[in-house]
Amino acid sequence: MPPPPTEAVEFVEMAGHIVDSLLLPKVLDAILSRGGRYHIDQFDLGQKQDDPSFARIEVRADTPEALEAILREIHPHGAVPTQPADCRTALADVEGAFPDGFYCSTNFRTQVRLGGEWVDVEDQEMDCGIVVDPEGAAARCVPMASVRKGDRVIVGRTGTRVFPPESETRRHDLFEFMASPVSSERPKAVSVREVAQAMRRTRKAGEKILAVLGPAVVHTGGGELVAKMIRAGYLNVLFAGNALATHDIEQAFYGTSLGVDLDQGLPTDEGHEHHLRTINTIRRLGGIKNAVEKGRLTSGIMYECVTHDVPFVLCGSIRDDGPLPEVVTDVIAAQDEMRRHIPGTGFCLMVATTLHSIAVGNLLPAAVKVACVDINPATVTKLMDRGSTQTVGIVSDAEPFLRALVSELEKS
Amino acid sequence: MPPPPTEAVEFVEMAGHIVDSLLLPKVLDAILSRGGRYHIDQFDLGQKQDDPSFARIEVRADTPEALEAILREIHPHGAVPTQPADCRTALADVEGAFPDGFYCSTNFRTQVRLGGEWVDVEDQEMDCGIVVDPEGAAARCVPMASVRKGDRVIVGRTGTRVFPPESETRRHDLFEFMASPVSSERPKAVSVREVAQAMRRTRKAGEKILAVLGPAVVHTGGGELVAKMIRAGYLNVLFAGNALATHDIEQAFYGTSLGVDLDQGLPTDEGHEHHLRTINTIRRLGGIKNAVEKGRLTSGIMYECVTHDVPFVLCGSIRDDGPLPEVVTDVIAAQDEMRRHIPGTGFCLMVATTLHSIAVGNLLPAAVKVACVDINPATVTKLMDRGSTQTVGIVSDAEPFLRALVSELEKS
Amino acid sequence: MPPPPTEAVEFVEMAGHIVDSLLLPKVLDAILSRGGRYHIDQFDLGQKQDDPSFARIEVRADTPEALEAILREIHPHGAVPTQPADCRTALADVEGAFPDGFYCSTNFRTQVRLGGEWVDVEDQEMDCGIVVDPEGAAARCVPMASVRKGDRVIVGRTGTRVFPPESETRRHDLFEFMASPVSSERPKAVSVREVAQAMRRTRKAGEKILAVLGPAVVHTGGGELVAKMIRAGYLNVLFAGNALATHDIEQAFYGTSLGVDLDQGLPTDEGHEHHLRTINTIRRLGGIKNAVEKGRLTSGIMYECVTHDVPFVLCGSIRDDGPLPEVVTDVIAAQDEMRRHIPGTGFCLMVATTLHSIAVGNLLPAAVKVACVDINPATVTKLMDRGSTQTVGIVSDAEPFLRALVSELEKS
Amino acid sequence: MPPPPTEAVEFVEMAGHIVDSLLLPKVLDAILSRGGRYHIDQFDLGQKQDDPSFARIEVRADTPEALEAILREIHPHGAVPTQPADCRTALADVEGAFPDGFYCSTNFRTQVRLGGEWVDVEDQEMDCGIVVDPEGAAARCVPMASVRKGDRVIVGRTGTRVFPPESETRRHDLFEFMASPVSSERPKAVSVREVAQAMRRTRKAGEKILAVLGPAVVHTGGGELVAKMIRAGYLNVLFAGNALATHDIEQAFYGTSLGVDLDQGLPTDEGHEHHLRTINTIRRLGGIKNAVEKGRLTSGIMYECVTHDVPFVLCGSIRDDGPLPEVVTDVIAAQDEMRRHIPGTGFCLMVATTLHSIAVGNLLPAAVKVACVDINPATVTKLMDRGSTQTVGIVSDAEPFLRALVSELEKS
Repeated sequence: MPPPPTEAVEFVEMAGHIVDSLLLPKVLDAILSRGGRYHIDQFDLGQKQDDPSFARIEVRADTPEALEAILREIHPHGAVPTQPADCRTALADVEGAFPDGFYCSTNFRTQVRLGGEWVDVEDQEMDCGIVVDPEGAAARCVPMASVRKGDRVIVGRTGTRVFPPESETRRHDLFEFMASPVSSERPKAVSVREVAQAMRRTRKAGEKILAVLGPAVVHTGGGELVAKMIRAGYLNVLFAGNALATHDIEQAFYGTSLGVDLDQGLPTDEGHEHHLRTINTIRRLGGIKNAVEKGRLTSGIMYECVTHDVPFVLCGSIRDDGPLPEVVTDVIAAQDEMRRHIPGTGFCLMVATTLHSIAVGNLLPAAVKVACVDINPATVTKLMDRGSTQTVGIVSDAEPFLRALVSELEKS
Repeated sequence: MPPPPTEAVEFVEMAGHIVDSLLLPKVLDAILSRGGRYHIDQFDLGQKQDDPSFARIEVRADTPEALEAILREIHPHGAVPTQPADCRTALADVEGAFPDGFYCSTNFRTQVRLGGEWVDVEDQEMDCGIVVDPEGAAARCVPMASVRKGDRVIVGRTGTRVFPPESETRRHDLFEFMASPVSSERPKAVSVREVAQAMRRTRKAGEKILAVLGPAVVHTGGGELVAKMIRAGYLNVLFAGNALATHDIEQAFYGTSLGVDLDQGLPTDEGHEHHLRTINTIRRLGGIKNAVEKGRLTSGIMYECVTHDVPFVLCGSIRDDGPLPEVVTDVIAAQDEMRRHIPGTGFCLMVATTLHSIAVGNLLPAAVKVACVDINPATVTKLMDRGSTQTVGIVSDAEPFLRALVSELEKS
Repeated sequence: MPPPPTEAVEFVEMAGHIVDSLLLPKVLDAILSRGGRYHIDQFDLGQKQDDPSFARIEVRADTPEALEAILREIHPHGAVPTQPADCRTALADVEGAFPDGFYCSTNFRTQVRLGGEWVDVEDQEMDCGIVVDPEGAAARCVPMASVRKGDRVIVGRTGTRVFPPESETRRHDLFEFMASPVSSERPKAVSVREVAQAMRRTRKAGEKILAVLGPAVVHTGGGELVAKMIRAGYLNVLFAGNALATHDIEQAFYGTSLGVDLDQGLPTDEGHEHHLRTINTIRRLGGIKNAVEKGRLTSGIMYECVTHDVPFVLCGSIRDDGPLPEVVTDVIAAQDEMRRHIPGTGFCLMVATTLHSIAVGNLLPAAVKVACVDINPATVTKLMDRGSTQTVGIVSDAEPFLRALVSELEKS
Repeated sequence: MPPPPTEAVEFVEMAGHIVDSLLLPKVLDAILSRGGRYHIDQFDLGQKQDDPSFARIEVRADTPEALEAILREIHPHGAVPTQPADCRTALADVEGAFPDGFYCSTNFRTQVRLGGEWVDVEDQEMDCGIVVDPEGAAARCVPMASVRKGDRVIVGRTGTRVFPPESETRRHDLFEFMASPVSSERPKAVSVREVAQAMRRTRKAGEKILAVLGPAVVHTGGGELVAKMIRAGYLNVLFAGNALATHDIEQAFYGTSLGVDLDQGLPTDEGHEHHLRTINTIRRLGGIKNAVEKGRLTSGIMYECVTHDVPFVLCGSIRDDGPLPEVVTDVIAAQDEMRRHIPGTGFCLMVATTLHSIAVGNLLPAAVKVACVDINPATVTKLMDRGSTQTVGIVSDAEPFLRALVSELEKS
């Protein structure tokens, strides 16, 4: 069968631990899935486990469009055209939008070719565009809403390359175990130990530990455990919502969380109002920091954040009552506020929150290790679907997990 | 045993179907739970099923504070002091906050006593305060953030009364069946039929049907089914988020939803970019309405909303990419925008969304019937916990449920 | 409207705390739901909280059949005909089956009228029939498969009465808190404390504590915690399946559970065989007890059971490998074996097992309090649906829950 | 660093599509994970997509034991020693148990070397041993409980080889799409279409379609849909439990399922007894077949099975009431009965059952394609963990899924 007259061809290269990291198999699979064909032009297999491999692959497809689709798909797996050229840019012609054909970023380390040099992209974040600075010497990820008219935005894949993490690298990294599958049926003491070790290593490396917490942390009685971790220097930045902060302060004011007495466990109809009265009181006092300074708020997670200079970002959501004065009610402003705190973060602990976990997962570069703890396997799965190489999911219960974690951290 | 010297006493009255609606038992139970004692002073039991009952109950507690707590708890069950007085108010002294001791609203029909007259509270909504107009002739629910300095806000329970729904009433109402328990193991054809009947009745009554939809409606392939309901006049207002609208438009543009081909079901890495490119295109076009008017968007849920004058509110969340220009990124503004569309609503269909369902559930008065469909029982349970008398939960899968619903609606 | 010519009437009586226990409202509701009508003929409301109430209710329905259906439904709520008569019996004419019209038991305390005397039914268990002894002096619950030809089996409801638990009773009983709703968002330390108190009280009362355990107890690393409870005398009978015992012994033999190393958490393909080799070894040794006696099995849950004379019943299921020699592979024989161990049981702790929890829940009389711990809310809900007054559900993670429970038990 | 004195070495070979099927990467990864080292001695990469590849790998480990562990782990991925020898056997010395060191089977096609010839193993099933016939000419999988003293059982891996499915093969096989991740957010119409196509192809190939059904099929109202599929010849064997059959017959007798009216959806307390009365009636009639023959059972799934000669196996479980006479109460006997029906099966549809799905999944060879439909993602995940290459998981609701499937099947 002769090739179709419009058949299109391109050569791509891959290098590194491309076999045991599954990158090469994934690329070959992707070519076949999208109806393409391949021919391995050159293949140097690293014979020992530490040797890198190299492959040059001829990719063919029936039409230039089909080929383009294949190349776009294999690019994030590290397959780059053999003939490098500088990246191409277009000027943004609309505020808050990219030019058509803009390059869409991943959360993997990325380089772009500027003036013949490969340059690391700054502020790596997924689902952004890449803007080149006016001098053409640097490039950084920019979210859509932050684009300004006249920005030089990279279009197409030419002159870009991605460094997907290799599984072998991962293996010797923060987490020694805990592969992808999400299950509640794992030895829990091991998960706790691994997270504690990751937190100690991060602290020792002078990097920040970021906590993303949902209100169930307080409802299940874990507030004091988080407070302990803050006092011990194990939580350095806090991202949460109105609910976490409200129920934490409600506990300080009334001893209840959403009206449930945390000592007796007795729910009361009347207690349901506590969270509203809490918010109202804090609004009357002019905010959480004021409440601490005026001596009205004297315990809990938010109190410890204020007294230990742990910055916090409280992001608004449409289900919020109130909200507390510190809550950033504009969601785009809230994302930007979170972005400001991410540089320098080495580890992120997410507990009992779906919305905030996914939002923060979108912002983190792949190099930041994440442990996501939730009693609902669906939450853990959702997060891991979006960046499996960096996240370990732990299906467990907030308070008992935190209790075990604090006691493990105290051992050291 | 003599009564403690500080023992406090109050008489309350209840009227209506208080036995078979469980209101009286709940009140007696609440008194005992909180350490109080009761004495049934007078009890006239309706002898036939349609006769109302009446009870006067003496409530005692060890301290005035304990009595107050009991009265606060039984008040929403319709137990009001026998000696009515006008409601008391205090002037708001802080922008965006209530005075201390403010009355906290439920979503049940409520009356307040003004100048000796019982007056219905307008804009009934849970977790609000009640503001009396300057003339002292009317009262309405106001959320905390909307309070203005100088507003006359009701404090305490004096001069307020609540009309909780009676279960017997409910029985002959919109839903003929479907008691509280949430289970996936119910006959699904019956659920579908009941929802269809509620929608027909609502339309016949000249009331609006409100849809609250999550992106899984589109991911599972239900977009065209929703479009059909809009065309048939069965959805009159839409509340959703950036994701639902984006994936709906992505399907119109690319035939995919989050990059999954809706005809083939094949996920593609490259397709992951489709949603970003979709948002970017709509931003470049100046919004969804513009995209329809310019002939660029020609099918799908959002297209039908625009062409059939179905108003929609797209509420922002911190996990949003972009977002689309119509998205209200300030969450408090988004709540207000939703509030504007609630009057006149007779039925609300929530499908496959936790965040929006709970947010809307908070805004709806108890008189609006709600059907909440989700494949995750936890979502359904969460919503029903907050207003069980008005909500039926249906644990089912979005697309197949909508398919059966559309075919049931077409029968009529 | 004149009554239909076939209208049927019956008088029933109820006594006790029938208002605040919700029994009366439930009965009235049931009459209406099934199309009947009622008239409260007499009603003496207990005026103080400790006074019992009394109601005589006239029940009407359009046909005798409809009336019969109503009476059958309200009978388990304690509504008995005003004119008592002796119970009626029929002789079993088929081995292993009841006569038609047999009385179907609940798990509530039940009495039958024999020779003018109300007699307590023995071996109370739901979904059984009641067999009267040849002398007509005693009666006991008998499962269908155990019926022998010639047994005198009670038919109809005449001469039977049920004592449903009253909620007020429950309140001051084993569990002080934890109402029906199942949620993971509860203060976990309180749940743990309540279960520990129930276990201490049961032991002090000289009653047995029954544990029903699933394999996730071992997978999550909780085996040693259960072993501790056995050594401390807090678990007196064990019901489980082949999997729990196998993975417990696998841990003793290989240090793994389903091939996952419980110290390292590392899953291995090869380790998957461990459970099969474990079963094979125990079969070669002639069973678990032999393995302990021969000094081959020296640690773990099963080891502690053998050495501390804690009887165990291992019930077979169709997903079993092997199975271990002690497993009762006939499911009806397994039920009978479990029944033998239930008398004298005061408390039952179920952890991480759906099948066994529901099976045991079916066997227990309502007087045995049950705590059901599972990370999956659906399991907890399923069990509570079948006997809500006696069961508290705790949505939590097996190992961390057991760790907290053991440490709470050690405090005393 | 000189090699440790005890270093052990072995050469293994792999052939086929070992790169794009991920088999080679998995083997290399496994060697490293278990502390081994490798050297690729020879590697011939298939240059075009249809060319097979070949690799000879030198595997080294610190000790013979470590090497043995590595070889045991990589063996199921198709890595076999370069120097083949005949398999080794040992005589079973205990009834119902294998000799120590027995070879533990997978569900992949396997060959053993007998008298210098590679012979296919019959009755391929996971977690069994392999018994060689007395003539030494054939071999078959045998479950532990079926071993007889004197059986020649294969020990060790020598002379055995496994043919794991290659992903490329899979791609062009029964399912065109639906990769491993389990999500409810998939286009449902595509899943339905794929299952329908698989069923048509299976029927056309003259192979059997096996259905494994849980009681929720009936509870959700799907009984008549299954009956239709039986009448249309799309279900050829049925595996289920006492509950599915009981509730199906309950529907035929009373119009209810677990007491819930399938037309009205109204649950009734009294109806709860229906399932017991149903079982009792069938026991009195001498079984399901007798009930059909006597004209007492005239509709439903079981009725169609009897009248269309569709064999069924009803397996007992400890939560069964009754049970129905046809239920096999001994679980090992039930497994054997199911095994008898598996040969000739080409496709298996599992709906709404965890226990039976996993039990049947354990029995099926990897070549039988499976679609597992459940509303609970955990069930689907559990099954797929045990044999991901053959099973597609569909998170959906039983009745609506079956309704769509039936209507898709009727299109052809």
